[in-house]
Amino acid sequence: MSKVLSGMRPTGRLHLGHYFGVLMNWVKFQNECECYYMSADWHVLTTSYVDTSAVNENTLEMVADWITAGVDPEKSVFFKQSGVLYHSELFLILSMITPLSWLQRCPTYKEQISQIKNKDLSNYGFLGYPILMSADILLYKANIVPIGEDQLSHLELTRKIARRFNNFYGDTFIEPKEELTKAASVPGLDGRKMSKSYGNSILLGESDDILRDKVKSMFTDPLKIKTADPGHPCGCVVFAFHEIFGIEYKNREEECKAGAIGCMSCKKQLMEMLSEFMKPLTEKRKDLIADKAYLEKIVEAGCRKAAEIAQQTMEEIRKAMKF
Amino acid sequence: MSKVLSGMRPTGRLHLGHYFGVLMNWVKFQNECECYYMSADWHVLTTSYVDTSAVNENTLEMVADWITAGVDPEKSVFFKQSGVLYHSELFLILSMITPLSWLQRCPTYKEQISQIKNKDLSNYGFLGYPILMSADILLYKANIVPIGEDQLSHLELTRKIARRFNNFYGDTFIEPKEELTKAASVPGLDGRKMSKSYGNSILLGESDDILRDKVKSMFTDPLKIKTADPGHPCGCVVFAFHEIFGIEYKNREEECKAGAIGCMSCKKQLMEMLSEFMKPLTEKRKDLIADKAYLEKIVEAGCRKAAEIAQQTMEEIRKAMKF
Ligand code: SF4
Ligand code: SF4
Repeated sequence: MSKVLSGMRPTGRLHLGHYFGVLMNWVKFQNECECYYMSADWHVLTTSYVDTSAVNENTLEMVADWITAGVDPEKSVFFKQSGVLYHSELFLILSMITPLSWLQRCPTYKEQISQIKNKDLSNYGFLGYPILMSADILLYKANIVPIGEDQLSHLELTRKIARRFNNFYGDTFIEPKEELTKAASVPGLDGRKMSKSYGNSILLGESDDILRDKVKSMFTDPLKIKTADPGHPCGCVVFAFHEIFGIEYKNREEECKAGAIGCMSCKKQLMEMLSEFMKPLTEKRKDLIADKAYLEKIVEAGCRKAAEIAQQTMEEIRKAMKF
Repeated sequence: MSKVLSGMRPTGRLHLGHYFGVLMNWVKFQNECECYYMSADWHVLTTSYVDTSAVNENTLEMVADWITAGVDPEKSVFFKQSGVLYHSELFLILSMITPLSWLQRCPTYKEQISQIKNKDLSNYGFLGYPILMSADILLYKANIVPIGEDQLSHLELTRKIARRFNNFYGDTFIEPKEELTKAASVPGLDGRKMSKSYGNSILLGESDDILRDKVKSMFTDPLKIKTADPGHPCGCVVFAFHEIFGIEYKNREEECKAGAIGCMSCKKQLMEMLSEFMKPLTEKRKDLIADKAYLEKIVEAGCRKAAEIAQQTMEEIRKAMKF
């Protein structure tokens, strides 16, 4: 059976971008593969190390979001990176064989260093982030890694590190393959990619009141003012959501273009659909969040299970290195 | 009670430079302090990662050398770095808060990169070596670290990292102080510092035959050819050894200068002393090496003990970081 490793940083609540972009994939994988879903809590420190007080709580909230979306802790292993010590051990080992230049030349590294100015990214750990990600993957011998296009260079690095290790110490690691997740299928309220940092997202478990405000604020065709004005659905956020949700809204494109519907009614319909979609999720999430002990137990059990697999790999690694 | 942490890389057998420069200090400390003596096996990988097959065996040989020199595993904790997983965990954590520039500016880093040409030092792990050393020290809350002058900048970095951590997450680490060990009190056969890489050393447990050859090859005053020639003891390796060993050879300086003794006899006397000094060590070492299981047991017990202390510190660290 194929093995899947995927992870998210526990930095706050998940939104519909995560739901449709990642979690639906996770749900699909859990019925076909052996799945390891990780809260990448050490990774949070690569960019935010000064205040770490929320990280642990965020892992639990995130796990609640996973379950809310239908990812099943009975089928998949939910664990946190910091709960399986072997991640740091393999990080240390791979550090020894990874040329600095591979990291310095990493396109994401150069990009983030030049673009992100409000955070101090000049730390050793931030430069080594792709090694930690490699350790995460190689530790479970995952052969499938669902990632976005922007992470492709990291997976390429993982394969290079795996080859280098195998070359020095004998065949130990398999080279993981990416499963590209389509990014940005869900636009944010303003039409850009849905992202927490843009403040344009709809959270899993959002209340009706907030949903209403958010739908109201959604970007639509600015040229369509009156109902009769012919609209341009392409680029309209409301329309994008209709496409995602509504099988019965297939005619919307034509209606909009023909001026047969106004944006207000169009938004109202979306609001109804969104509300219906969200209601069971919001309830499920509320129940989960109310029982932190249950969430903790899931993570603990997952860490134990993950550690078993990781330990096996570490034993092979130590044997290969004659350590 | 003060806590001492000290370590050596398991790269081969120890010589008299280690014996007088380091191990005599360790023996002294073990009666006054809580001592942790570490085989720094992960550190070996920072500079030699391609072939790691001898590292484990070298740890056992090194431990045999420690015991041979009188360091007592009943009084001190002997352990290997790779046997206590928390070293890698703390390395990972400290990586996240250590500015790259602190490492790049490290004088030993710049020096080694420019001087060592026969090894590939361009790896991520080599740059991060001082962080790993910091983790080693801080994990045991050692307040005394016996080091040579060349390692001073690393200990300064350890203090800086400790302060930075305490500053972010609250007082957790103490700042360790150095105990400077006098380097190069024992010259090598050729008069340079005794060092494995110069091929000028006298090993612990050296046989009489080899001792004889090595004493013969020792550098003496090249101007003293006949017995009656006045010699210059300063700079003569044989004389330096007389100084180390021989209380009854206090007159040697005058005898040499006066041409009252020839180099041959002088060497013969040294050979006798050296042989007498080495004999019990050689026997002790032979017995120890013959019982690898005993050495393994010592290291295993030491790792368990060290892990207990390290775990306590890690719990404090996690609590401070709210992880
Ligand atoms: S009618 Fe609907 S699809 Fe057309 S622009 Fe308005 S909100 Fe968008
Ligand atoms: S007599 Fe002894 S001390 Fe003097 S030069 Fe010769 S070996 Fe050295």
